[in-house]
Amino acid sequence: MALLMMIYRIIFVIVVLIGSTSADLSWFYPASPLTGFVAAPGAPWPMPESWQNSTSQMTLDPLTFQFTSDLTDCDVIDNAIQRYMKYIDLDPNGVIDPGLTQLTGLTLTVDDTNCAQDYYPHQGMDESYSLTISGSTEGSLSAKTIWGALRGLETFSQLLYLKENKMYRINQTTIIDAPRFPFRGFLIDTSRHFVTVEVILNILDLLSWDKFNVLHWHISDDPSFPYTSRTYPDLTMGAYTPDHVYSRDNITKILYEARLRGIRLLPEFDTPGHSWSWGEGYPALLTPCWGEGLEGGPFKPNYPYHGPSEVINPMEEYSYEFMDNFFQEIAEDFPDGYIHLGLDEVNHNCWASNPNISSWMEDMGFTELNQVEQYYVERIIEIVARKGSYYIIWEDPINKGVKVNESAIVVVWMGNWEESMSRITSQGHYVILSSPWYLNYISYGEDWRTYYAIEPLSFTNNATLWKLVKGGEACMWGEYVDSTNIISRTWPRISTVGERLWSTIDVKNVDDAQYRLHQHRCRILRRGMPAQPIMNSFCGDYEWDYDRSPHNTPLS
Amino acid sequence: MALLMMIYRIIFVIVVLIGSTSADLSWFYPASPLTGFVAAPGAPWPMPESWQNSTSQMTLDPLTFQFTSDLTDCDVIDNAIQRYMKYIDLDPNGVIDPGLTQLTGLTLTVDDTNCAQDYYPHQGMDESYSLTISGSTEGSLSAKTIWGALRGLETFSQLLYLKENKMYRINQTTIIDAPRFPFRGFLIDTSRHFVTVEVILNILDLLSWDKFNVLHWHISDDPSFPYTSRTYPDLTMGAYTPDHVYSRDNITKILYEARLRGIRLLPEFDTPGHSWSWGEGYPALLTPCWGEGLEGGPFKPNYPYHGPSEVINPMEEYSYEFMDNFFQEIAEDFPDGYIHLGLDEVNHNCWASNPNISSWMEDMGFTELNQVEQYYVERIIEIVARKGSYYIIWEDPINKGVKVNESAIVVVWMGNWEESMSRITSQGHYVILSSPWYLNYISYGEDWRTYYAIEPLSFTNNATLWKLVKGGEACMWGEYVDSTNIISRTWPRISTVGERLWSTIDVKNVDDAQYRLHQHRCRILRRGMPAQPIMNSFCGDYEWDYDRSPHNTPLS
Repeated sequence: MALLMMIYRIIFVIVVLIGSTSADLSWFYPASPLTGFVAAPGAPWPMPESWQNSTSQMTLDPLTFQFTSDLTDCDVIDNAIQRYMKYIDLDPNGVIDPGLTQLTGLTLTVDDTNCAQDYYPHQGMDESYSLTISGSTEGSLSAKTIWGALRGLETFSQLLYLKENKMYRINQTTIIDAPRFPFRGFLIDTSRHFVTVEVILNILDLLSWDKFNVLHWHISDDPSFPYTSRTYPDLTMGAYTPDHVYSRDNITKILYEARLRGIRLLPEFDTPGHSWSWGEGYPALLTPCWGEGLEGGPFKPNYPYHGPSEVINPMEEYSYEFMDNFFQEIAEDFPDGYIHLGLDEVNHNCWASNPNISSWMEDMGFTELNQVEQYYVERIIEIVARKGSYYIIWEDPINKGVKVNESAIVVVWMGNWEESMSRITSQGHYVILSSPWYLNYISYGEDWRTYYAIEPLSFTNNATLWKLVKGGEACMWGEYVDSTNIISRTWPRISTVGERLWSTIDVKNVDDAQYRLHQHRCRILRRGMPAQPIMNSFCGDYEWDYDRSPHNTPLS
Repeated sequence: MALLMMIYRIIFVIVVLIGSTSADLSWFYPASPLTGFVAAPGAPWPMPESWQNSTSQMTLDPLTFQFTSDLTDCDVIDNAIQRYMKYIDLDPNGVIDPGLTQLTGLTLTVDDTNCAQDYYPHQGMDESYSLTISGSTEGSLSAKTIWGALRGLETFSQLLYLKENKMYRINQTTIIDAPRFPFRGFLIDTSRHFVTVEVILNILDLLSWDKFNVLHWHISDDPSFPYTSRTYPDLTMGAYTPDHVYSRDNITKILYEARLRGIRLLPEFDTPGHSWSWGEGYPALLTPCWGEGLEGGPFKPNYPYHGPSEVINPMEEYSYEFMDNFFQEIAEDFPDGYIHLGLDEVNHNCWASNPNISSWMEDMGFTELNQVEQYYVERIIEIVARKGSYYIIWEDPINKGVKVNESAIVVVWMGNWEESMSRITSQGHYVILSSPWYLNYISYGEDWRTYYAIEPLSFTNNATLWKLVKGGEACMWGEYVDSTNIISRTWPRISTVGERLWSTIDVKNVDDAQYRLHQHRCRILRRGMPAQPIMNSFCGDYEWDYDRSPHNTPLS
């Protein structure tokens, strides 16, 4: 393995020497050059499981190049081919290299021909593929499912590069690839700030370029409720304004575009905490918090302990009927099979302030507020499980000893994540890691190195526990981001998480990764999205092409 | 004063109650409401020196509204009127309020009629103005100079707001205003990353909305030299690529647009350190650094002490002849009168490695490398002063005891800024404060509060020293920013510096400021620039208007 790596490195160096990358990182100071192995152009991100590169080059004409699929009448494949036809058109001034054999097409073979309209990307889907550019004029891409074909098309598009005089090149290559973890997610928070539908659609594209497969949509929270419910239309009274809302058409569109990219749309409707905005349209859902003394009575705040109301009322049957109807709708409308129920950070102070909760606790034989929380959690998960939905939850209920189904997936988000991962997997639960990948916590400098260095299985040496780790997710909570900055702040920092979750455990040299990451960032710019720089650098011909760069388009 | 403030507050509250802002900050959690005084719509940023607001409202029709100037044939005024005609057109669906008197125009009176093509904004220019909306159909704006008129137009445009049913409103108002500090700058760094001309022009607009008056252009540094020199055209060999260059036309355009906005363009060409990129085209400019042992000899690195070369060669007359010619060009082409010479962070290790420098030091009678640096600095400032230019420098030479002219302005950038400000003003030098406003150092959360809380005069109680404080500048060094993120990362964080440097010392309540700052941020969005949010919030009708938002314009 080490020798093979060495050979690859020598090959890479040759590739670097015979061409110029036209995009480069720059030293910080003359006295502090960068270390690490400089990636040749056409290096994929995330790194495939097996990549046999070679120095034998072919050329390509994007205007006549053809993708051919044995699976016809499949919207997922047809749409992907349209997208990748655009992506391989790297430069309007690109030309073939007349001295090289031309790769004229790529043949897609998909074993499982399922492409039905109700066939959605799902937990455990097969995303493997193999890709061969052998020297013949036709390359081949084979996958077990349409989802694997999407991943392979992305990799193929990344192998292409331009050399001197803008001549298209692609190396003869054999790739056999599959993800290391099945759940590779990204959380957006559309409650603290509204994120426009256009930007969410852009995010789906960006996620697909990093081979992410889950958009975890934290739709609602205390500040606003932007989701349009069929069953409870007045929930949007909790939106910032009637225009800060995702319409039914918007939701359908986002689901449709996510499926086309092999991305699961995982909706989260967080209760019983983080639910203040539900009360705008349905005040009876919320527990009245009681003020103290002269400020006493229901629906009165007692800052900083509680607001006038903020958590779902656990003692009213109305709450459970509401949630039953509401999650029935969600189960019908979101085809993923999984629903994220939230269940985190419940503020007990409100319940503690309310004398009716106290009486009810006595009736129920509860002596602690944790039991109130447990009661709510158990009823909610029973409601959702009864519908046949699987659920994903934040780790809080587990930490408080609440029992959940074996099939539940628990998202670890707290600071001491190794302890949480260890404890929760030891209890037999599936887990997803998010704690070290809270991208909203920005800091000066190259924080992407920290994200890249995280090894999700490092919490134990017990391989049985490893099997319970379904993957991870990067989170961009919305306190300080909206459509103005979510893309540039997230990319390419998140790409490091994408590689960590897709590539094998030995792909971990951060100094080597920086060159490929920079190349990937420039690729993102070329595709029209404003990914921020990772350090002193430039991006060849792409960064100042205002017509292609959305942030540079002149205003009316 | 306190009573007057109280009355203003009552007036403000009435204004809030009778209208809706259609843009709002949101609580973080129900239990933690925001504190501070909620600004009424139409609140200016930065706060004027004197602002007599009232509850008497007028209305306005932006399509028929007329700016009239007694100064005709003045491009600065004419162009400003065009810009502000656009800015007051807040909403295509806005209408007049038929129940109110209509403000049909604003009359500009400018005392000093100088508007010559070679009349540029300059150190010490008069930016005062007064603005009256008295209830008559014609408002009045008077200023001593065209620069003051620009500031007044900006304030006027900010007074306008929309009420229910999108009816235009403007309150009867008397404002008498002038800046607290004459130098209010922003540093951009186009060496570590290239920033496109379009984005620089956008930045000029943004600066004018915050009443900044200096763009400090840190053009060159180690990584790249993007400036096209007439005298030494090969300097652009140090650019990242031949396209990562500011052409002569670009420079002319940026100067022109800066003047139209009353913004000084202060060029910095940093020597003798931070000058690696100069050596690409003119290798003889740089001191050869010598390697050690087997890696010995000239132009050899000795990491991490020095690169193969990185500092201007102080012992060669060629260096001084070159700088004489070069700064002659800069003095001719940049009309500001001030040139920023850099002179910071000189790496002595390179000089120490070179035996020829050692011999030369003996010849010169120098025993310390500080003397070498001092020799270079003294010759450079002599060259520039001889041309009649004033110069601005980073504080380093002063800290090393180098003598500079009394007219020099010293930029304090080191961590213990109170000590630097105190020491350097005690030596009789003019100072500009930048240390606490290095906006490139990002961190999670509301760091703008920290910037806002800085009081530049807090370093002393000595009013004589206060008079030497010319102002301050915010810096966005370029390691991690380029055209993709410089605007959203800088605004509205920088706006806090704008208010600190413009408004009176008592405008300092950060909780009150947050509402006005949010309103200002929404104003920036409305004008088409992607300023990031300051906390949970929304921006009325503006944030999701894709056609106006540059980052949302669809790609080709």
